Amino acid sequence: MRRKVYVQGSRPDIQVPFAEVDLTDGSTPVRLYDTSGPGVFADLPRRRWVEDRQVHGAPVTQLGCARAGIITPEMEYVALREGVTAELVRDEIAAGRAVLPANVNHPEVEPMIIGKAFLVKVNANIGTSAVTSDVAEEVEKLTWATRWGADTVMDLSTGPRIHETRESIMRNSPVPIGTVPIYQALEKVKGDPLKLTWEIYRETIIEQAEQGVDYMTVHAGVLLRYVPLAADRVTGIVSRGGSIMAAWCLAKHRENFLYTNFEELCEIFARYDITFSLGDGLRPGSIADANDEAQFGELRTLGELTGIAWRNDVQVMIEGPGHVPMHKIKENVDLQQEVCHEAPFYTLGPLTTDIAPAYDHITSAIGAAMIAMYGTAMLCYVTPKEHLGLPDRDDVKAGVIAYKIAAHAADLAKGHPGAQAWDDALSKARFEFRWEDQFNLSLDPETARSYHDATLPAPAAKTAHFCSMCGPKFCSMRISQELKEYAAQGMADKSAEFVASGGKVYLPVTSA
Amino acid sequence: MRRKVYVQGSRPDIQVPFAEVDLTDGSTPVRLYDTSGPGVFADLPRRRWVEDRQVHGAPVTQLGCARAGIITPEMEYVALREGVTAELVRDEIAAGRAVLPANVNHPEVEPMIIGKAFLVKVNANIGTSAVTSDVAEEVEKLTWATRWGADTVMDLSTGPRIHETRESIMRNSPVPIGTVPIYQALEKVKGDPLKLTWEIYRETIIEQAEQGVDYMTVHAGVLLRYVPLAADRVTGIVSRGGSIMAAWCLAKHRENFLYTNFEELCEIFARYDITFSLGDGLRPGSIADANDEAQFGELRTLGELTGIAWRNDVQVMIEGPGHVPMHKIKENVDLQQEVCHEAPFYTLGPLTTDIAPAYDHITSAIGAAMIAMYGTAMLCYVTPKEHLGLPDRDDVKAGVIAYKIAAHAADLAKGHPGAQAWDDALSKARFEFRWEDQFNLSLDPETARSYHDATLPAPAAKTAHFCSMCGPKFCSMRISQELKEYAAQGMADKSAEFVASGGKVYLPVTSA
Repeated sequence: MRRKVYVQGSRPDIQVPFAEVDLTDGSTPVRLYDTSGPGVFADLPRRRWVEDRQVHGAPVTQLGCARAGIITPEMEYVALREGVTAELVRDEIAAGRAVLPANVNHPEVEPMIIGKAFLVKVNANIGTSAVTSDVAEEVEKLTWATRWGADTVMDLSTGPRIHETRESIMRNSPVPIGTVPIYQALEKVKGDPLKLTWEIYRETIIEQAEQGVDYMTVHAGVLLRYVPLAADRVTGIVSRGGSIMAAWCLAKHRENFLYTNFEELCEIFARYDITFSLGDGLRPGSIADANDEAQFGELRTLGELTGIAWRNDVQVMIEGPGHVPMHKIKENVDLQQEVCHEAPFYTLGPLTTDIAPAYDHITSAIGAAMIAMYGTAMLCYVTPKEHLGLPDRDDVKAGVIAYKIAAHAADLAKGHPGAQAWDDALSKARFEFRWEDQFNLSLDPETARSYHDATLPAPAAKTAHFCSMCGPKFCSMRISQELKEYAAQGMADKSAEFVASGGKVYLPVTSA
Repeated sequence: MRRKVYVQGSRPDIQVPFAEVDLTDGSTPVRLYDTSGPGVFADLPRRRWVEDRQVHGAPVTQLGCARAGIITPEMEYVALREGVTAELVRDEIAAGRAVLPANVNHPEVEPMIIGKAFLVKVNANIGTSAVTSDVAEEVEKLTWATRWGADTVMDLSTGPRIHETRESIMRNSPVPIGTVPIYQALEKVKGDPLKLTWEIYRETIIEQAEQGVDYMTVHAGVLLRYVPLAADRVTGIVSRGGSIMAAWCLAKHRENFLYTNFEELCEIFARYDITFSLGDGLRPGSIADANDEAQFGELRTLGELTGIAWRNDVQVMIEGPGHVPMHKIKENVDLQQEVCHEAPFYTLGPLTTDIAPAYDHITSAIGAAMIAMYGTAMLCYVTPKEHLGLPDRDDVKAGVIAYKIAAHAADLAKGHPGAQAWDDALSKARFEFRWEDQFNLSLDPETARSYHDATLPAPAAKTAHFCSMCGPKFCSMRISQELKEYAAQGMADKSAEFVASGGKVYLPVTSA
């Protein structure tokens, strides 16, 4: 059985949630990281944490506090959540190697951390478009995404009712919410990017900051001189924000206003502790375009902007691609870590091939697992609908699950302390035919159970020492488990005994 | 539109199939590797190829012919299929670095090659079990698997009607068929492994050889001394064949009869040109057990057996794991290539985490893509039902598609000549909003089309310059494509013109 439990920190209002799985063999329950939120957003202790800092004149941002040596309640919360010391959390934030995205106006958030020293995180994109749009449905997708393990959610709404959609999402979200403010700014100018101005953009980010948006994608690295570099690509510019800013720069023949006003942007972000997600507007949209000069030129500019943000005590992460063949993945992380001074990397996949629309959660889970192994801190999911349409509820789940797999595979490959305990608990349950434990420890207990029950629905099959895959006589786990018991008795002198008990090992099971 | 075309070789009866995709922009059609078979198995030219060799006293096996400098019709066939020279095919087979599995009694087979110099291949497992079994359903799964791109199929049937099931599969299979003969041998002794003998096993492989089985998994490396090494594992022995042989060795306290009779096995295999798939009976079944001494000890023995098979002109591939975390994958390929003298590696996944039963096609596609990038020649698929039940038709498709993705991602990463042309053609179609071309070039055209049509079913949407994911105003591809046209006109002096045409770029689309 899975239950929600809370671990209390140094003060009564630090209550860190976990999903605890009880095991039928009576061994210690397994605690899993839990993003599903409280369900009802009643008590909001984070209000007090923020107010306390104001009263005591502490820095507003987590970066400012960390640099001042302060361990905030948010830092302690994530330390408990990750199973590490609060000092490590503070030090990684102070060094810029991790971010704790938590707008002062988002008291509903359950703090989490993004950085290569911590568990790899997963972001799920939701949001309306001009073609399909329903506020309640988006809130439903938010809850659904966090139920399956999304660590942050980006509201990428365009079209009508952007403000209202976002307000509903913010007030119902236990995870940090990210946005791309240029989308709303463009709506304000009725879709004509040439009418975009710094003033309209600034007004938009302040509106969103007041609502509590925790991190914002800003395409400040799409410089005028980089745009022509994308002209000969197979797929040009595939970032929406990137293409909007490129159009603006080219048409006006002026430098990107997000770049030229970046200092003022930092001042605003600092007031709310909004984290920059510096957008990769020139990311490759196909295998052919991976790792080209447009992409890497922009990346170097993002490194320059990282330094400016940090001088303003503003937290920063860096967005990455996109579509990259496997052999070119590592170079992306290495260069990003070098030119962006180890700011956390946050990548979309990457997709490792272009040939499988409708399966891009898989083409990209491969790349995501690898790029996370190399040091990427957060993975933006890709759903089966990528390139084809807006994800529905099923797509959101498919995307989150594929990315939780990628993230956990990377945690294992990085040797993250404690990561393998989950695998070991599940494999031990599997080997011991504790089917209910195996289901409950799964990333998706419902589906695992339903697949098993598709051929063996009887309750007795839940304790049987086989499944329909091999049947009783060919169940290697069963044979092997009995061999293990046999070996434990001492091998050489026991073979006669084993022969005698052979009937037991291979007895065809007629019931159960 | 996709059509089947045939390329003719040096003699009229060498006809190599491809799926040709016509493009709506009139550019050169794209030819894709095609495993779907002829539909009706009427003309079987391979009968003549085999007879011709007998008449002229040529060696029976492809390895024997290759070593004698002979380019067989089968070799020419695969050369055309792979787009390489027949000499390369012959040389790779002669060196043992590739296998061309084609039993003399399987005239229905369309020759294919497995080796690291060639396209990465995918195997699909089908077959009945004691719990669920239906011959017609298995033939249907075979046809279904090859339709989606399975390069070989293993019939892992257990339970009743093994011979009959296999006969139906052989006579309907355009791809090489593999089996694990110990399963049928065990049925013959009513499931009691202690009654297994070399004689019963030999009779079984001859029965299967006569039917035309192209490759057989033989667990000859499960030596008595390795079995205790698996005793302390989290999941013991998870290979069915491995656990059967381990039980036999332990109970009798004698060496594995497949190992002690390996020379005679080679003589039989040589008569039919059956390819060894040397089984990894001690492969790890969990992350905890990866790369341990039981696994690697057996692997070294498989290397020794490879040498014996080669001395008998018998082709060999080596089976590999299993469950392996990402950072331990490369070591598997490197060691296998070293100790098995570059014989082709054929791995099951590997799964990169144990936590996601019901999604192990994804946990393992990650590992499969990586291990293939490092040099694995063929990937055995894993379906969503792995660990939970026998795969049905939908599971077979899900497994094959996930593995075609992994294989192609590896082809790209290895820089296989021609591999990227497929991605480029699809991405170009995507960028130019040739939706029908994008669908037809997809690994799964039907699903890609249906996902698109879920929100935009109107015929006009198939030529629209956006989809429901972003809607018209935010379609970066659309904006970017128009930027590209603009850039092509010359940039600096054209900005005024672009401003004037801005209304065109961002005009909200109200129809289509």
